[in-house]
Amino acid sequence: MDVIKLGMIGLGTVGSGVLAMIQEHADKIYAVTGRRLVLKTVMVRNLAKHQDVAEVVHLTTDLDDILSDPEIQIVVEVMGGIHPAKEVITQLLQAHKHVVTANKDLIATEGADLIRLARANGCDLMYEASVAGGIPILRTIADSFAADQITEVKGIVNGTTNYILTQMAQQGWTYAAALKQAQQLGFAESDPTNDVQGKDAAYKMMILSQFSFGTQVNLEDFETTGIDAVAAQDVRQATAFGYVLKLVGVARLVDQGIFVEVAPALVSVHHPLAGVNNENNAVMVRGQAVGDTLFYGPGAGALPTANSVLSDITTVVKNMILKTNGNSFNRYSQALPLATPAQVKDRYYLALTLPDQPGEMQKLTTVMAQINASFSQIVQQAGENGQARVMIITHTMSKEQLHELQQRLTALGTITLHCAYRVIE
Amino acid sequence: MDVIKLGMIGLGTVGSGVLAMIQEHADKIYAVTGRRLVLKTVMVRNLAKHQDVAEVVHLTTDLDDILSDPEIQIVVEVMGGIHPAKEVITQLLQAHKHVVTANKDLIATEGADLIRLARANGCDLMYEASVAGGIPILRTIADSFAADQITEVKGIVNGTTNYILTQMAQQGWTYAAALKQAQQLGFAESDPTNDVQGKDAAYKMMILSQFSFGTQVNLEDFETTGIDAVAAQDVRQATAFGYVLKLVGVARLVDQGIFVEVAPALVSVHHPLAGVNNENNAVMVRGQAVGDTLFYGPGAGALPTANSVLSDITTVVKNMILKTNGNSFNRYSQALPLATPAQVKDRYYLALTLPDQPGEMQKLTTVMAQINASFSQIVQQAGENGQARVMIITHTMSKEQLHELQQRLTALGTITLHCAYRVIE
Repeated sequence: MDVIKLGMIGLGTVGSGVLAMIQEHADKIYAVTGRRLVLKTVMVRNLAKHQDVAEVVHLTTDLDDILSDPEIQIVVEVMGGIHPAKEVITQLLQAHKHVVTANKDLIATEGADLIRLARANGCDLMYEASVAGGIPILRTIADSFAADQITEVKGIVNGTTNYILTQMAQQGWTYAAALKQAQQLGFAESDPTNDVQGKDAAYKMMILSQFSFGTQVNLEDFETTGIDAVAAQDVRQATAFGYVLKLVGVARLVDQGIFVEVAPALVSVHHPLAGVNNENNAVMVRGQAVGDTLFYGPGAGALPTANSVLSDITTVVKNMILKTNGNSFNRYSQALPLATPAQVKDRYYLALTLPDQPGEMQKLTTVMAQINASFSQIVQQAGENGQARVMIITHTMSKEQLHELQQRLTALGTITLHCAYRVIE
Repeated sequence: MDVIKLGMIGLGTVGSGVLAMIQEHADKIYAVTGRRLVLKTVMVRNLAKHQDVAEVVHLTTDLDDILSDPEIQIVVEVMGGIHPAKEVITQLLQAHKHVVTANKDLIATEGADLIRLARANGCDLMYEASVAGGIPILRTIADSFAADQITEVKGIVNGTTNYILTQMAQQGWTYAAALKQAQQLGFAESDPTNDVQGKDAAYKMMILSQFSFGTQVNLEDFETTGIDAVAAQDVRQATAFGYVLKLVGVARLVDQGIFVEVAPALVSVHHPLAGVNNENNAVMVRGQAVGDTLFYGPGAGALPTANSVLSDITTVVKNMILKTNGNSFNRYSQALPLATPAQVKDRYYLALTLPDQPGEMQKLTTVMAQINASFSQIVQQAGENGQARVMIITHTMSKEQLHELQQRLTALGTITLHCAYRVIE
C-alpha cells in the first residue's frame, strides 16, 4: 500500500499548480516519503471549464464524491473565501480526512474552531501556504524557534502592494498608475480591495502572531492601513531621506503585551527588508537568542504556493506513516493582553501642509513640544495655494503621543496631517 | 514524568549558550513540548575551569557518568573535531542516547556511519547547528522542500571570511589587516586556517548537498579556494564593476550531475547575497517550483547556534512523546555522478598582469578566441615594473574552457593569471 490518494476542492491557479507538482515531482516525493501521491478527485463549480484535466483526475461538483470515498485520505482546499470553505472543511474533518489549505482568510478568522475539530477527529490540518506563498515561514517558526522567545515578527507579506509600491518608487508613478499596470500584468486582481487596503496582510499577521506568540489577535484588535492613500510625493521624500516606503506588518511583544499593526512604513535602505521588491515577500523574525533572521521568497504564484501545499501534504504523509496525525500545526498557546498605545514606541515620518506664512511653523513646533516629542529630520517645500508641505522624521515617540499630536493638530484647524508612517531603521 | 534529563559533552562557547538557553527559556519549551528540560551532567576536560557552573550541573571528566546514567536520554555534543568526537557519539548511540551535535567537520566527513548507527539503535541524531549557526536551513530543506526539486543551493556560510571580506570592501583594507582586526574582535580564531582556506565552508556545503540533492560529496570531489590570496585591488575592482566579492559555496544540479565548489565570487550588488555583511550568513535555495528563496541570519555566536541545538532537542523531545525516534534527519538519498568541467558554465572575473607593450594584449585576445570565450567588460591599469594589470568579466564559459585558458596563458610565459572568480548576477 504505497499509494496515497488525495482529493481537492477548487482548481484555480494554486489548484492547477498542485496538480502539476503532484505529477511532475512524483519521484522526489516517493524518494522522501516512500509513497506515491495520486490526486483522484477534484471538486469544481463548472465541469465544462476543466475538461482539459478530465483524463487525469475525476472531476465532480458533488462534495460527497470526496467525503464518502474511503480511498481519499488527504484533501486540499483551495476554493478560498470563508464560506462555504469553513463548512466544507468541517465536513471533511468529520469524515476523518486530513486537510491542507491555503486559505488565509479562513484560518485567520475561524482557524481556532477548525483546529479543535481536527484534533478531536485525529486529523491533521495544515496551512503553510496561507502565509507568504512559497516561503516556509510557519513550519520554521513552529519547529526551529520552539526553544527561543520571539520578540518581533515583521514583514512584507502582500505581493500586490509590494509590486505597486516598488513601481511607484522606481518609476515615480502615482498609486493609480501603478495599480493599473499591476492589474494589466496580473499582479493585482480586478477588485484589489483586500490587498490594497491591507486586509490580506492583516490576516497573515494574525496567523504569524499565533505561531510567534501563541496568541490569537482579532482583526478588530489592531489598526490596518493600506496603500490606497499613499502619495507619490511621500514615496519620493522617503527616498530622499534614505528610506523605502513598504507596506509592513508588525507583531511585537511589548512588556508582555502584544502589538500588531499593518501600515505603510519607511524602511531604511540598509535594512534587509528594503531590498525586497516587486511581488516578493520577506518575513523577519527576531528571537531573544538567535537575533534577526530573514526569510525571503516569492509571496504568491501558482507553483511557489503549490510547493507550500505539497510540503504540508508530505508532512501529513510522514505523520500517517508514523501514525502521529492529529497534533496541531502550531502547539504554542498563551493568552497575552494587547499592548497599550503608551507602550508602543517608534519613530515616525509625518507629512503635513500648513499655510506658508509666519507663525504656522511655530504652531507645529509648539504642539510637538507640548506632547514631549521632537524632530530628527525636517524638510519644507513650497506647495499649492499658499500652502507649504512639511515632511518630518521624529525621534522615538509612543502611539499615545502620536494620537495626541493628531488631535492637537486637528484642533488648530490650519495644519493638515496627511500621514504618519512608522520608520524602521 | 514531564522532566527530560540531558547530558552534554563540552562546555565552550556553544555549550555555555545551550546551558543558558535551557535555563532561561524553560517556560517556552514547556509551553511547546509539555516537558521540562534539565541539563544534568556535563563532561569537560578541565573541572577547575568550569567551577562557576558546578552548582547547576554535575561536572565530570568521565564519559561513563553520562553513558551509564539511565536518566539521561538526550546528549548534546559540542566538543568539536572529528576524533574523539566520532568515538564518543558512537558510544552514546550504542548506549541508546539521542544525540544533538553542532559538529560540521564530523557530520560532513563521517556522518553516514553515525546516521546508520543512530537508525540501527532507534535513536535520533540531529545537527541543525552544523550549518549556518542560527539559520534553520537543514530542517527547512528537509521539511519544506520535500516535494520540490532543488536545482541549486548557494550561500555565504562562513562568518569569519565574510567579516574579513566586508571589512576589505568597506574600509579598503588588505587581507592581512582585516584578518588581524577580525582576530582582535573575536570574529577569527588565532589559527584561522580552516576558515580562511574555505574548509569550514566546504564541510557545510557537503551537508547542504546531502539535504538538497540526497547525495554525499567528498571533500576531494570538489575545489575549495579560500580568501587568503584575495588582493585588495580585486575587491576594489569588483566594486567598480558593480559587484561585491564574497566567499560563496555553490552546489548545483547540472544535467543530473552534481557540482560543488567553494571559492571567492563576484556577487552583483542587486543580488540578495550582496547585502549579507560581516559575520552574517545566508543560504539561497533555488527550487524548480518555488523559485529563489533566501534564508538569512547570524552564522555563528553562542546563542544563535545554541538556538539551533535547542530546536533539535525540542524535535527529539516531540519524537520521544510521539515514540517516533530513529528516523533520519534527512531522508532524501540518491546517487548522482559528479558533473564534468564541460557541463559547468558560469561567467568569470579574471585579473591578469602582462608586459605593458604592443602585442601582449593581442596575445590574450587570441587565446580567448582560441578557446571560444569572450569578454563582457575589460579594464586595463598601469602596474609596476612595466607591467599592466588587466581585469576582465567574461561571458559564460565552462570550467573546461577556464582550465584551458589557464594552461594556454601559462604556456605563453609572459601573462600571469592572478585569479578567476565566478560571477553571480
